[in-house]
Amino acid sequence: MTRIADLPTPSLLLDRARLDRNLTRMAERMRALGVDLKPHLKTAKSAEIARRATAGFSGGITVSTLAEAAYFADAGFRDITYAVGIVPPKLEESAALMRRGVALRLVTDHPAMAHAVGEQGRRLGLRFCLLIEIDTGSGRAGLDPESPLLIDAARSIVEGGSELAGVLTHAGHSYGAKGPEELRKVAEQERTGVVRAAARLRDAGFPIKRVSAGSTPTAAFAAHLDGVTDTRPGIYMFGDLMQAAIGSCAVEDIAVSVLASVIGAYPERNQVLIDAGSLALSADRNANGRWSDVGNGWVLDEAGRRMEGIFVERVHQEHGFVTARAPLPFERLQPGTRVRILPNHACITAAAYDRYHVLEGGEVVAEWERVNGW
Amino acid sequence: MTRIADLPTPSLLLDRARLDRNLTRMAERMRALGVDLKPHLKTAKSAEIARRATAGFSGGITVSTLAEAAYFADAGFRDITYAVGIVPPKLEESAALMRRGVALRLVTDHPAMAHAVGEQGRRLGLRFCLLIEIDTGSGRAGLDPESPLLIDAARSIVEGGSELAGVLTHAGHSYGAKGPEELRKVAEQERTGVVRAAARLRDAGFPIKRVSAGSTPTAAFAAHLDGVTDTRPGIYMFGDLMQAAIGSCAVEDIAVSVLASVIGAYPERNQVLIDAGSLALSADRNANGRWSDVGNGWVLDEAGRRMEGIFVERVHQEHGFVTARAPLPFERLQPGTRVRILPNHACITAAAYDRYHVLEGGEVVAEWERVNGW
Repeated sequence: MTRIADLPTPSLLLDRARLDRNLTRMAERMRALGVDLKPHLKTAKSAEIARRATAGFSGGITVSTLAEAAYFADAGFRDITYAVGIVPPKLEESAALMRRGVALRLVTDHPAMAHAVGEQGRRLGLRFCLLIEIDTGSGRAGLDPESPLLIDAARSIVEGGSELAGVLTHAGHSYGAKGPEELRKVAEQERTGVVRAAARLRDAGFPIKRVSAGSTPTAAFAAHLDGVTDTRPGIYMFGDLMQAAIGSCAVEDIAVSVLASVIGAYPERNQVLIDAGSLALSADRNANGRWSDVGNGWVLDEAGRRMEGIFVERVHQEHGFVTARAPLPFERLQPGTRVRILPNHACITAAAYDRYHVLEGGEVVAEWERVNGW
Repeated sequence: MTRIADLPTPSLLLDRARLDRNLTRMAERMRALGVDLKPHLKTAKSAEIARRATAGFSGGITVSTLAEAAYFADAGFRDITYAVGIVPPKLEESAALMRRGVALRLVTDHPAMAHAVGEQGRRLGLRFCLLIEIDTGSGRAGLDPESPLLIDAARSIVEGGSELAGVLTHAGHSYGAKGPEELRKVAEQERTGVVRAAARLRDAGFPIKRVSAGSTPTAAFAAHLDGVTDTRPGIYMFGDLMQAAIGSCAVEDIAVSVLASVIGAYPERNQVLIDAGSLALSADRNANGRWSDVGNGWVLDEAGRRMEGIFVERVHQEHGFVTARAPLPFERLQPGTRVRILPNHACITAAAYDRYHVLEGGEVVAEWERVNGW
């Protein structure tokens, strides 16, 4: 049995009990709300985790890159939504996945793209399957539910020779909501927007089966999901300081942390250096807009207990600068000591690692691979 | 011959002519200043580039992780400085490298660590070789040149049974300097500090051969390097927007860029989406403290020409939000169009990729691997 003390630093730790609890909570919630769960694997990027997250559902998953799609296809997944706007140069790779038996769903919000996808499909000898992306307030991608282009896009898909699979939205602005009341409002805005888009398309004669919504905060706070067929949350599996700050998980739910070593101690400036910097923790500091003294992450001891008030104030490439407003307990932070860092944004932090060291009862019980890159 | 148009997006591009020019400029400068160049490979992480960067010098290199050290050892490098404070759990891996014939130099600033390293060396049956890290103003790691601990550290190294190889400093605060005048001052502060530490050690009876200094900005601006034996700049190979903002390279010197595809166009909010987000560009926005309208990077066209005033305002995991203060030229930014992004901080951006697509005259002439992780 590997002990945490035997792992190299920095390493990515995954607490299996917390992961399982997070998966169960979301699964039960989606079952109670009567929708399929097609979890977004952009955070976990792991077949082991995907199998656990889809247990009891249709087996459909969501990905953010075609590299993920290929990896999960290798692992046996056959219903994959690639939820980033498609452009023609990615269609050959998409076609290769479809030829392997993957029901690949692509996303667009642009009639011209829908048309181009159809053309490429004819050239490649297959029929792509498209979802129309709907903007329910995030201001990222998608058509407004009331946009006249919505019907044009559907027409371009069908007349272009592709299959229209449905509509899809992601209420990314849920990350900006303050408190449960606002989150419930954003969730309802997401639901009504995508359901309205589906209704308009149906009224225009397009049969719309799939109505897909969801971010972790909205999935966690939606009062009901009437009219929605599936959700695609991802970060709920791990949680992070940003999700805790939003209120979509508790700090005690955060399942991933970065194991690091203290490599220097500087009492004269109340500072400790660790060997986890910008690459090991990521430069993403998104929870700092919500909470103070987060920096690049909170410091835990090797066993995972919070060292109250201690945080990574800033980072260089391979150095993290640890401090606190109170004097640091230097006796517990001698060079060579191991600590853990709770990340701001688990999706970005995890992407620096090719594997998870899976913990159970303080022991390392497994190593699970991840897929990275494009 | 692969064309840029055939590459998947996002991809990491490396302009060979610019790289070579950057390498030549630094090599000539270090030769003129009479010092060895032991370049820091934390940015490039590539054996191809390391060979070019060390041509005409001793062949010594600097790394930021033991994974890099092992990779460069595989590639035949035999003089490697691991320039991050050593802690005992990393000594077995270090010893394995030494047994393969690598002259591995480790770094410490702590008498107790120096002692522990010696003890481990005895246990492992070899003699580690240590440099004492000196803080010449960066406030990261290192002992003050006047610190009484300096002599203690040297004594702990020698009495502990390790070899004392010399002193090393990194004036990381050069990144905060404003203008050539201040940069020359920081460079001189770095030089005098590390030379003073060496002199104190020599006065105390320790023969100090190696006196190692250098960051890219100080190496670029030092008026002279008397008393210094080698420098360890890294980012000069590529440059980036931060280095351009500091003044240690020109924008036209930046050798790396991220190839991305436009995946959505939204004239109503003067916004274009690209498929390069936080993972492809990194969340590091360090040039924004210097220049406005940098965001997560400047936008170039596919051929590498600057699209004046257009930048990646913000990022999600796989989405970049492109905008400008003036109306965007949407006719040149249709979905499917390719653009390139100049990064804020090349070290961090490059770490998301396992290879460089090397460009010459607009063609992709080679693929060079990178080593990532720990």
